[in-house]
Amino acid sequence: MKTTRKEHDFLGELEIPNHLYYGIQTFRAVENFNITGISISKEPLFIKALGYVKKAAALANKDCGVLDAKITEAICYGSDQLIAGKFDQEFVSDLIQGGAGTSVNMNANEVIANIGLEYLGHKKGEYDFLHPNNHVNCSQSTNDAYPSAFRIALYLKMDHFIAILSGLEVAFSEKGVEFKNVLKMGRTQLQDAVPMTLGQEFHAYATTIGEDIKRLKEAQSLLLEINMGATAIGTKVNAPEGYPEICVDYLVKEVGIPLTLSPDLIEATVDTGAYVQIMGTLKRTAVKITKICNDLRLLSSGPRTGFNEINLPARQPGSSIMPGKVNPVIPEVVNQTCFYVIGQDLTVTLAASAGQLQLNVMEPVIAFAMFTSLDYLGNAIETLVDKCIVGITANTDHCFNMVMNSIGIVTQLNPILGYEVCAGIAGEALKTNKSIHQIVVEERKEITQEKWDEIYSLENLINPKFINS
Amino acid sequence: MKTTRKEHDFLGELEIPNHLYYGIQTFRAVENFNITGISISKEPLFIKALGYVKKAAALANKDCGVLDAKITEAICYGSDQLIAGKFDQEFVSDLIQGGAGTSVNMNANEVIANIGLEYLGHKKGEYDFLHPNNHVNCSQSTNDAYPSAFRIALYLKMDHFIAILSGLEVAFSEKGVEFKNVLKMGRTQLQDAVPMTLGQEFHAYATTIGEDIKRLKEAQSLLLEINMGATAIGTKVNAPEGYPEICVDYLVKEVGIPLTLSPDLIEATVDTGAYVQIMGTLKRTAVKITKICNDLRLLSSGPRTGFNEINLPARQPGSSIMPGKVNPVIPEVVNQTCFYVIGQDLTVTLAASAGQLQLNVMEPVIAFAMFTSLDYLGNAIETLVDKCIVGITANTDHCFNMVMNSIGIVTQLNPILGYEVCAGIAGEALKTNKSIHQIVVEERKEITQEKWDEIYSLENLINPKFINS
Amino acid sequence: MKTTRKEHDFLGELEIPNHLYYGIQTFRAVENFNITGISISKEPLFIKALGYVKKAAALANKDCGVLDAKITEAICYGSDQLIAGKFDQEFVSDLIQGGAGTSVNMNANEVIANIGLEYLGHKKGEYDFLHPNNHVNCSQSTNDAYPSAFRIALYLKMDHFIAILSGLEVAFSEKGVEFKNVLKMGRTQLQDAVPMTLGQEFHAYATTIGEDIKRLKEAQSLLLEINMGATAIGTKVNAPEGYPEICVDYLVKEVGIPLTLSPDLIEATVDTGAYVQIMGTLKRTAVKITKICNDLRLLSSGPRTGFNEINLPARQPGSSIMPGKVNPVIPEVVNQTCFYVIGQDLTVTLAASAGQLQLNVMEPVIAFAMFTSLDYLGNAIETLVDKCIVGITANTDHCFNMVMNSIGIVTQLNPILGYEVCAGIAGEALKTNKSIHQIVVEERKEITQEKWDEIYSLENLINPKFINS
Amino acid sequence: MKTTRKEHDFLGELEIPNHLYYGIQTFRAVENFNITGISISKEPLFIKALGYVKKAAALANKDCGVLDAKITEAICYGSDQLIAGKFDQEFVSDLIQGGAGTSVNMNANEVIANIGLEYLGHKKGEYDFLHPNNHVNCSQSTNDAYPSAFRIALYLKMDHFIAILSGLEVAFSEKGVEFKNVLKMGRTQLQDAVPMTLGQEFHAYATTIGEDIKRLKEAQSLLLEINMGATAIGTKVNAPEGYPEICVDYLVKEVGIPLTLSPDLIEATVDTGAYVQIMGTLKRTAVKITKICNDLRLLSSGPRTGFNEINLPARQPGSSIMPGKVNPVIPEVVNQTCFYVIGQDLTVTLAASAGQLQLNVMEPVIAFAMFTSLDYLGNAIETLVDKCIVGITANTDHCFNMVMNSIGIVTQLNPILGYEVCAGIAGEALKTNKSIHQIVVEERKEITQEKWDEIYSLENLINPKFINS
Repeated sequence: MKTTRKEHDFLGELEIPNHLYYGIQTFRAVENFNITGISISKEPLFIKALGYVKKAAALANKDCGVLDAKITEAICYGSDQLIAGKFDQEFVSDLIQGGAGTSVNMNANEVIANIGLEYLGHKKGEYDFLHPNNHVNCSQSTNDAYPSAFRIALYLKMDHFIAILSGLEVAFSEKGVEFKNVLKMGRTQLQDAVPMTLGQEFHAYATTIGEDIKRLKEAQSLLLEINMGATAIGTKVNAPEGYPEICVDYLVKEVGIPLTLSPDLIEATVDTGAYVQIMGTLKRTAVKITKICNDLRLLSSGPRTGFNEINLPARQPGSSIMPGKVNPVIPEVVNQTCFYVIGQDLTVTLAASAGQLQLNVMEPVIAFAMFTSLDYLGNAIETLVDKCIVGITANTDHCFNMVMNSIGIVTQLNPILGYEVCAGIAGEALKTNKSIHQIVVEERKEITQEKWDEIYSLENLINPKFINS
Repeated sequence: MKTTRKEHDFLGELEIPNHLYYGIQTFRAVENFNITGISISKEPLFIKALGYVKKAAALANKDCGVLDAKITEAICYGSDQLIAGKFDQEFVSDLIQGGAGTSVNMNANEVIANIGLEYLGHKKGEYDFLHPNNHVNCSQSTNDAYPSAFRIALYLKMDHFIAILSGLEVAFSEKGVEFKNVLKMGRTQLQDAVPMTLGQEFHAYATTIGEDIKRLKEAQSLLLEINMGATAIGTKVNAPEGYPEICVDYLVKEVGIPLTLSPDLIEATVDTGAYVQIMGTLKRTAVKITKICNDLRLLSSGPRTGFNEINLPARQPGSSIMPGKVNPVIPEVVNQTCFYVIGQDLTVTLAASAGQLQLNVMEPVIAFAMFTSLDYLGNAIETLVDKCIVGITANTDHCFNMVMNSIGIVTQLNPILGYEVCAGIAGEALKTNKSIHQIVVEERKEITQEKWDEIYSLENLINPKFINS
Repeated sequence: MKTTRKEHDFLGELEIPNHLYYGIQTFRAVENFNITGISISKEPLFIKALGYVKKAAALANKDCGVLDAKITEAICYGSDQLIAGKFDQEFVSDLIQGGAGTSVNMNANEVIANIGLEYLGHKKGEYDFLHPNNHVNCSQSTNDAYPSAFRIALYLKMDHFIAILSGLEVAFSEKGVEFKNVLKMGRTQLQDAVPMTLGQEFHAYATTIGEDIKRLKEAQSLLLEINMGATAIGTKVNAPEGYPEICVDYLVKEVGIPLTLSPDLIEATVDTGAYVQIMGTLKRTAVKITKICNDLRLLSSGPRTGFNEINLPARQPGSSIMPGKVNPVIPEVVNQTCFYVIGQDLTVTLAASAGQLQLNVMEPVIAFAMFTSLDYLGNAIETLVDKCIVGITANTDHCFNMVMNSIGIVTQLNPILGYEVCAGIAGEALKTNKSIHQIVVEERKEITQEKWDEIYSLENLINPKFINS
Repeated sequence: MKTTRKEHDFLGELEIPNHLYYGIQTFRAVENFNITGISISKEPLFIKALGYVKKAAALANKDCGVLDAKITEAICYGSDQLIAGKFDQEFVSDLIQGGAGTSVNMNANEVIANIGLEYLGHKKGEYDFLHPNNHVNCSQSTNDAYPSAFRIALYLKMDHFIAILSGLEVAFSEKGVEFKNVLKMGRTQLQDAVPMTLGQEFHAYATTIGEDIKRLKEAQSLLLEINMGATAIGTKVNAPEGYPEICVDYLVKEVGIPLTLSPDLIEATVDTGAYVQIMGTLKRTAVKITKICNDLRLLSSGPRTGFNEINLPARQPGSSIMPGKVNPVIPEVVNQTCFYVIGQDLTVTLAASAGQLQLNVMEPVIAFAMFTSLDYLGNAIETLVDKCIVGITANTDHCFNMVMNSIGIVTQLNPILGYEVCAGIAGEALKTNKSIHQIVVEERKEITQEKWDEIYSLENLINPKFINS
């Protein structure tokens, strides 16, 4: 029994193993693009989105009278299989590829055509009955189908990422409450500044992550504008009248997100601004998490010769040579993932800059950069929450003692003694190694012990009242 | 007559030339920071914003009962001089500086104090009557005064930049109308694709710039949240009850923009997310303009061996050796400016990542990067509009002839002849160097001349109708 | 039969499936680091290098009298298995990991210990006889073993990459010869300049790649300096006298490359400068290949409305909608890979900047960035050579006709007529659409036909002689 | 009396103020390029190098018989004025400019021509006697004269920068000696590791900077290859036989550096690889200095709640609100300058990637980026040395006490007690807050006090001997 079928394109003919649903053009793509070893099949959401796009296009084509009912039904059936994730393994082309996504689009066209052919009782490859280009790709070009599917996939993927990020916000917020009475020294420029609480510090992390969630959602919404019906370059050549709007309507129903048709299809077909915006915002998140992880590593430095304000949960022995050493391995891995993301932001910037005339052919590497960044950073954040943040404990006494032994608390006396007198006290403390209390209350008697107690009560240090006499 | 005055701080005493309004701390800053040779005086909006901040703080302090009327009046007088731009030359510290902006803040405090002292009938340096720290900086820290002033300055500067960018949008839009009947070949992946108009191409530039204006305004609005009253680290230490809100109210009135008080002052004092967001968005603009300038250079390539679709206005002889050569010097200089901006986005990213604990001490280089980027790119865009875009002309006949001689126009026949037949025709054209018309109408007689004329009329090529039989 | 064994570390006890050679610490790493899904097993050279390091360390330890013969033999046996690539699948931790490589080092220690235990007739996990830390890791720390292995792996990997790059140089060089008589227009600033040959253009590509090979080899040599014996921070704590030098000697013999011991082990243990240098140089290669691929796409633009000087081999149908379209898909995928590499250079920069005090904990992401960059770019270059460069053909006649029809050839007349007269001729040609020949010889009779033929012979255009009268 | 002269080019005629030495083309450049406000006059070395180039070209032209003695003398005279720095103020075009440097080259041509004209007894503008293009630019194009001058200028500027960097190496080296007996805790991953000396730490800084000096010199040497005689695109069109070699010979003598002629002038004319290499290496320096400054800030953190191992010299009051606060302002400003440099490396990368066909038109922004980076970073390093490093003092006692109170010193007992026993001791110390001495000697009596004293003597901690029983 014959185990291959012949397929041809205008470059020639090839034997395709019969069990494969993809065809000659996908085959060529596999031959041509062997870069990362990471194939489209690793992005099920992208395949799902291609299914949505092909189905909506078929239905719109039928409404416009350019596809008949039977063919439409077959395409819809094939598309539904993609949406259901049943043919992921047929998406074999490398994520980074030339051709502006043509290979991915044709991969979908071929797989759907062959599923559809079998559905209609034909054999794979009998494209006269259901053709990848003439039917599955009807009224479409790679240049509208690929980016539309990519945008939908990215939108859905961002939903997932934002949910993870919200988990981080919550974790910080809960620690903010837990640590609300842990008094500690605030530091600016790594120098002792004035007191605050550890709760305020963690609460601020929650706040800053919360702001990023808002920014990411704003940026995500840019993906809702798609260019179905633009065909090759946005002039709608070969798309029937009314098709673009109908197609988008079907997509809205299928996917359940408020997609809209771009008002300038020429611009929409070449523009990659939405990706730059999203990746820039994701970079912002990476920047913030970098700072936070740096803080966590600094605050847990020690145990004896560092800050030692907090303890991160021990996850593994920290050294192959130094016994008992426990390292902040989770923030460390998160830091590194952030560096990856910031690097990929540059990759997206470069790719976006390289658009030319009516198309940006570099979209596949944009997809690669964004998919991997969302995956890796999402994984890193989940790890951070589960394996680090929730288990952080405070060294409350040590924190408190450091505050009371600090020079920075002299700042609280400014309104009473003035900046210059306080500067003198600070200088003396630094030189003599004495405490502020010793100098101010015991020796100089600048203020009474009662006043001291009022100013330096835990309550007042945590929520400073303005006391100026 | 004595031409210097003695000033001291807790590091010692210095002689300050008497004509100078700035004092010892600014003096030290000049000694310490000698990096770029570009001083704060180059940013009049920053000095103006410092004036606004100091005035609002003084008024709020008076309302809170911590400054008396006379001192408040003197501070307001001094601040008004800054707002009016009369003391720009006294702002001598380098834009890139250590100390998280302390030197800039103290520069303002000192200059205002000395203006105020003279206003009150005292001599410069008689700080017992009006003190840079105790009075001008009352209820403030560098860590709230500096970023608040920076944000206000940046907001105003962005207004100016956005106005320039709108000029670019308009210029492209007008060319879009002017060229609306110039038929030309659309290109994807630098290969001949399908026809479009030059007007559509320029209109798309207008659209894409218009979108960036929206994004920049969104990002700009993040600057409206300020942290006055946070003082050192956001705990409001040394700020009287109610002061933060009152101070922001005064600022809103003074500056005339809807500033608000940050709901989490701890977070607001360390966070530089707004700068990352704005700079990322400005980078997006630079990316888009990079692409557009690349296009302009490509479309005007030639005159004989390039695309030669448009002519950029000649601005200068293009070569010291090749006579008559005219180069696209304006897009070239704009391209380069975009590279500067993209590089500075990385600088901002690095600086923002380097925040530690309660402060990001790297804010001055963020200011440097953003101020210079807005200036340079603003200048470049104005140049682009005035010296290039408005003078662009089209080679209409050449554009039309290229379309009719192209192979890509076979795409229009897909709905009638099918993709595969058309691919065959394209292949023959390529091999034989014949035109599509010759093969389809004259030789193969696939369609009649009438049908050809219908499909390939200028009207239908510009606004393609769906013709499938 | 029991299918698990108990292992413990100072965090507690875990059940390890008995068939696994790795132990508890690797197990914890798998739990902790789930970021990229790409494990160490994807880098066989890294595992091989770990084998070299562990073997050399064991032999040196024996020579120093701190390991006995039997244990040394067992470790060597285990290491040899790693070198032979037989246990790659046991290296399961994620390439991006916290802990500065401790998990990778312990993974090697554990696998070798268990192979060695079986070799000695014991069971896996009976670490009293052969201990991952006390024996396999003897006189080592992660902080010397990991970077030394990484450097060796990277060195070997660069050998492979440089060989691929040499293939590109050769391919270009051969095309340089093949096209040595194809006269074409040179272009500067995308404007017609003066004639040259296509051979010169391709030869220049060979030259520029050849220079990068030299730079990469220079940078590669920085890897030869390793820090074995530094142990934890470079003070050699716990390493016996003489061990570092002996260990490096063994490594030189084993690996066959001229490794040397770093003269400053403190510095060597924290420094990541070699990676920055190599990655910066690899970025340079990416920058050059970006430029070359841009050129290839530009020179093959068309076929009718572009430059159309060369033809890239057709690799796949170029469009799902435009029949007969063939795109430069190979340069496109290479361009995108270069963007990835440039992005990863930033990742390395960020990671290298994040070193603190005695260690740079971010080395794993540096490894990730460099390994993937060398792999992807190596793949891309092989693809470029095999599927594009070798098959490029020239449109010789079209190239020649464009030269003779150009205005730029007037430059050749500068020495005879002067720059200003030539500029006038050029201007007239541009305005009237006439050829230079027509104006100079036929109309203005500035030079004779004989002189014209001398100057504009193919021979003289290809190798211009200086003709000034 | 007439105060202007008429000049014309092929775009038309302009009135040039008579006192100006530059002419119409420079005038147009000033009109066209108004981006940064930073003109060529800010780079005297660039102007000097242009003088060298023009002089060498004139002399070579004379030797080749294409310029007569009188004209050559006049050009040499004019060039010498440039070399002497007497006409810097005539170089008015913006550093960032379109036209690939044509405006800079023509600026030099015009200024030299007019100086030469006056030298010959003519008036400025009487170009019939000495023409900017025909004579001063004879046998040259912007595309060889500009990059050759840029390379020479950059080479000289790097000499200056490397001298500054050597000062940093020396300063660190001296501190390495000064602190050679200051025992302190080494830290990896910010966790207490094993002891070392502060001297070793500073010595390592010297080592790492020393390596960068070597790398920078290697990279600098790439600048020695120049392309004089390439003219427009490297084909030597319009250059007389033998001219390139003669011209380079003259340059070698004039400048005193071993310049050579590029063996592939086509490649040399477009390639910007040397800049990428140098800027990448300068980035490496910035990366290292970033790390070092981060360390300095960390080691001096405190004074009471940080590491407090060293004291940076106080440079200015650290806060407008917190009395007595002294901040690490010098490392901070250096950190920020490094961020600028890293950002500019990206700018250079982008510009280098944008080369097209026979030229990279983006060289001016490369010049901008490299000139400013060398200036700013040079300034920052001088500041770092003079205002920080030389004044650093150590808190010797505090450092020693932290070591002896640490848990990490248990590592020294590994060879005697084994890793696991030591891990148990470490765990107990952490839990009970006891010292290692207390547990090991007093309670568990694992070793004697004598052995303890041997192992933990200052001598042995600084230069650990291997003690395993």
